[in-house]
Amino acid sequence: MEHLLSHRARAARSSVIRDLLKVVEQPGMLSMAGGLPAAESFPVARMREAVDRVLGASDGLASPLQYGPTEGVMPLRAWVAEQMGGDTLAEQVVITTGSQQALDLLAHALCDPGDPIVVEEPAYVGALQAFDAAAAAVVAVPADAHGLCVDLLADRLAAGLRPRACYVAPNFQNPTGATLAVERRRALAGLADRYDFVVIEDDPYRELRFRGEHLPTIGSFGTNVVTLGSTSKVLAPGLRVGWMVAPAPLVPAMVRLKQSRDLHTSSLSQWLAHDVLSDAGFLAGHRRTLAALYAEREASLAGALTAEFGDRIAFDRPDGGMFLWAQLAGVDTTALLPKAAAAGVAFVPGGAFHIDGGGTDRARLSFATLRADQVDEAVRRLSTALAAMSV
Amino acid sequence: MEHLLSHRARAARSSVIRDLLKVVEQPGMLSMAGGLPAAESFPVARMREAVDRVLGASDGLASPLQYGPTEGVMPLRAWVAEQMGGDTLAEQVVITTGSQQALDLLAHALCDPGDPIVVEEPAYVGALQAFDAAAAAVVAVPADAHGLCVDLLADRLAAGLRPRACYVAPNFQNPTGATLAVERRRALAGLADRYDFVVIEDDPYRELRFRGEHLPTIGSFGTNVVTLGSTSKVLAPGLRVGWMVAPAPLVPAMVRLKQSRDLHTSSLSQWLAHDVLSDAGFLAGHRRTLAALYAEREASLAGALTAEFGDRIAFDRPDGGMFLWAQLAGVDTTALLPKAAAAGVAFVPGGAFHIDGGGTDRARLSFATLRADQVDEAVRRLSTALAAMSV
Repeated sequence: MEHLLSHRARAARSSVIRDLLKVVEQPGMLSMAGGLPAAESFPVARMREAVDRVLGASDGLASPLQYGPTEGVMPLRAWVAEQMGGDTLAEQVVITTGSQQALDLLAHALCDPGDPIVVEEPAYVGALQAFDAAAAAVVAVPADAHGLCVDLLADRLAAGLRPRACYVAPNFQNPTGATLAVERRRALAGLADRYDFVVIEDDPYRELRFRGEHLPTIGSFGTNVVTLGSTSKVLAPGLRVGWMVAPAPLVPAMVRLKQSRDLHTSSLSQWLAHDVLSDAGFLAGHRRTLAALYAEREASLAGALTAEFGDRIAFDRPDGGMFLWAQLAGVDTTALLPKAAAAGVAFVPGGAFHIDGGGTDRARLSFATLRADQVDEAVRRLSTALAAMSV
Repeated sequence: MEHLLSHRARAARSSVIRDLLKVVEQPGMLSMAGGLPAAESFPVARMREAVDRVLGASDGLASPLQYGPTEGVMPLRAWVAEQMGGDTLAEQVVITTGSQQALDLLAHALCDPGDPIVVEEPAYVGALQAFDAAAAAVVAVPADAHGLCVDLLADRLAAGLRPRACYVAPNFQNPTGATLAVERRRALAGLADRYDFVVIEDDPYRELRFRGEHLPTIGSFGTNVVTLGSTSKVLAPGLRVGWMVAPAPLVPAMVRLKQSRDLHTSSLSQWLAHDVLSDAGFLAGHRRTLAALYAEREASLAGALTAEFGDRIAFDRPDGGMFLWAQLAGVDTTALLPKAAAAGVAFVPGGAFHIDGGGTDRARLSFATLRADQVDEAVRRLSTALAAMSV
């Protein structure tokens, strides 16, 4: 019956990571594979308070249970605009069903089939999927410890590359944990203006900074930038509430496309997100709590890895986010994974984040979900798996 | 800056209806334009109970606040499968972000650009938008008081038409209110098997039946059928929870595509929907209440229209749903709308539901949202607007 499917549907790729998550969700598995935030950090009590208020205020048309505007509910759009600062208007904000939907909308609204789109490599797998589904031609440009190598992109542009967009995650990038240097942000925004493409600035981890100072957004350096945000890492991914902040002339096309996709994002989720996010006192405290939790977990994973593997492992320490990007020189991490799973520990092999091979000796290790008392055991199991590789 | 948009984004059409809704949302407007269910019917108290239970049970991975599987949460999928009856398996169910998303997924997963897709005419505007966004070639086949004219479709197929899919809303269709006759359901399923296309059976209004008996689904007559359902008309559209029940071999492609669209539907919405829907006693009572409410509102609108307009208006009485499809012979309803809005009443002109003209003397009147005490006034205002047309 698969012959009933379109060619594009048969060609589509699945996320290695989401498929992997099913395999590793076994009892007793210590997983560093998922991109899941720490569930014990979810503000459940505050969320219940929000439900009471939001459902209590139910008044018909504006109800959290009723259909709502495709653009999103205005108070949440206004909150996002205010967070962005500068002269950002609420009218530039479109609320999306997670920032994954923003990637889907941007991919289709900026690229016709075959149009080139630049992606930092390694890159977030969900972005690759969205660009793939839009039949865009993905052009990988390497990223290093300071994020996308903007000078290499400049070379490609000077040589004639004319992309429709450039995708980059500026803070504590998934999977590398790298932060895009300020001078690169400025340069990238300049290239977008000069060569007339859109920078897709995907910024879900910004609030998970536990070292150093917040850096200015890429959007603050130029006009051809769409900045994405999300409640998934700060409040709760189960709400599926994200947003994009776009130049005003691009907004109507995004809204038209979103209409055809899902009419609008859950009204209930939007009103709940707005209730919690607009409680500035609570949010500030919650952000501090989160940053402290992730700092502690990153330190304990980094310490355990160094203690166990010494110079057989290499990684940069991220300033925030959820991921350590570890190099196990000479080890094929894709081959390591089944042995790791057998030993009761999981991670994502580096190859998953690359387009044409590459990253084969890398592993993305999430430090977000394991408790301090589980980390040593997880690292021991990883060591067992590595030993089994050498046999 | 619009030159940064793709050709497909610039070509996309907006929903006349959603654009219209913005215009008519003025204080004092009596609107029969929206497809909004009666807000006073939302089970707010039962939903709050569900929140207490669902957030109280928060336990990490399976949490309503955490990321979840792209296919949807298993208990909700199982509930849908059970409702479908027969030998439907939970594995055939994909939970979608409203049934609009199911239309989007099906359009892309079944059609490559330019592939023909048959649509009953007049048709639900959101379906037209989804097929449009997928660049499918929409082929309209007329519908009458008993739904899609399946004999006309058979003629087209015999003459060589080879569609990838056929879209039809079998119960209390939007906009006509018509119900697809049983013999047509059987014949349509047979044609799909014979000519190897998929029937998209879009069934959001099924539970809003207030006259007659439930009819068997199209899916019960054949294998090439995907049936869509939704919580939007029965519980609350703000949740954005719908589903599709598909032949098992088609499911993986839908799930891959959904991954790229929004990862998954709001976990919180899914668990809330499951909590309420699986409470069989409550649901049965709630469905009865809804049917009684809509029956009363349909009768009062039908009565008021006949009293005011006599034989200047014609319509069939629907057996359920939310819409009366009225004909005002000789009146251009698109020209009537601004005069109606000026008089403080709104509807959707019939042209919105047609592809190439047609329906120009029709108006879709929703009887769902106006209270009994508002109907007479709404009809009087419509009369004022009509009088202004003749001047």
